[in-house]
Amino acid sequence: MNDASRAAPSRADAGTATRAELLAAARKAFAVKGFDGASIRGITREAGANLGAVTYHFGSKDALYAAVLEDGLRPLAARVQEAVASAGSARERMLRVVRAYFAHFEVHPDLPRLLLQEVAAGKPPPPVVLEILIGMKEAIAGLHVEGTEDGSVRAGHSVLTALSVISQPIYLTLVAPMLRTFAEVDLADPAMRDIAIEHVVAFVRAGLEPHPEIPS
Amino acid sequence: MNDASRAAPSRADAGTATRAELLAAARKAFAVKGFDGASIRGITREAGANLGAVTYHFGSKDALYAAVLEDGLRPLAARVQEAVASAGSARERMLRVVRAYFAHFEVHPDLPRLLLQEVAAGKPPPPVVLEILIGMKEAIAGLHVEGTEDGSVRAGHSVLTALSVISQPIYLTLVAPMLRTFAEVDLADPAMRDIAIEHVVAFVRAGLEPHPEIPS
Repeated sequence: MNDASRAAPSRADAGTATRAELLAAARKAFAVKGFDGASIRGITREAGANLGAVTYHFGSKDALYAAVLEDGLRPLAARVQEAVASAGSARERMLRVVRAYFAHFEVHPDLPRLLLQEVAAGKPPPPVVLEILIGMKEAIAGLHVEGTEDGSVRAGHSVLTALSVISQPIYLTLVAPMLRTFAEVDLADPAMRDIAIEHVVAFVRAGLEPHPEIPS
Repeated sequence: MNDASRAAPSRADAGTATRAELLAAARKAFAVKGFDGASIRGITREAGANLGAVTYHFGSKDALYAAVLEDGLRPLAARVQEAVASAGSARERMLRVVRAYFAHFEVHPDLPRLLLQEVAAGKPPPPVVLEILIGMKEAIAGLHVEGTEDGSVRAGHSVLTALSVISQPIYLTLVAPMLRTFAEVDLADPAMRDIAIEHVVAFVRAGLEPHPEIPS
């Protein structure tokens, strides 16, 4: 490679890089300290940006938090939509949704905590985040409706079934740091992680299947 | 009632009352603001106590946090032990564990958040809390072992099965504030709460039962 091909980054490229650095630093700070505990000063310092960079790129701390969540949720929503649109029975596709959550949390383990720490305190999610969450909820609940039609899933409440499908990947990701210390279940160990994923998929499969004595 | 029966509280009673007020104020502050965000000044002011009361009654902010968690977890652990010791198949008792979690979270909805906000950030639980959690984990995992012996539960990983049993009450309690806004599932509505509990119990029952095609 000759030196001429390594041009200095353009101003636009530098801006994109700074924005990405701010998102990464903010994700880390919000995950560890919560929204109130994270400081703009700490985030910009960590990102190697000046103190005004958050205002310049995002407008406010609230908007930065929304951008961090959106950045983490969009690829998950894409994985979920891919599973929903795949071939097979509705139940098979719901199990692919379970795998999609685990696959996404493997690369983005902070996401459940980032989302739930504010939500659990009663703060409504930012509108852009709510829109993504509603899209995912409707896609999975829609699969349940399909499943009661193709006979692959027990009848029941579609939204509650959607929540049953996604609850275990989210819960296990949230408690993973504690599981290491008390239950000999280290989800950072690839072999144990595979065992956990297959366990959850089997549990959800059994939970979803039509059952002669459990009508809904 | 004559006036003489309303004696002034003794110093010991006043101390017990202050301790209880501090616990209630701390629970609220930690739930809303997180451990780092909650201040001793705010907690003592809310409890109507002087600034030194936390040090006097608990020793430190860490010890106050541990006391709040212990205070919330002990009655849950008692409910779980009661379900584990009750009559019936291991599977029936595991479903009573699910109901025990929902019953406890109805009176203590902040508990999952209080516990998980620090744990999810990688902070190990206080020793007294870890001890209670280990006791609950072993009781429920032990039920799974019993269930593979009495034939009422599918074989598999006992600790992962215990986590599958408790994940939905915990997850639904964490996301309850959001469910109200986006999914028309208001768990504060007693009728909807009953529907959700019966849904989860049915899902877990199906998930636990022996299944000809799902060996473990």
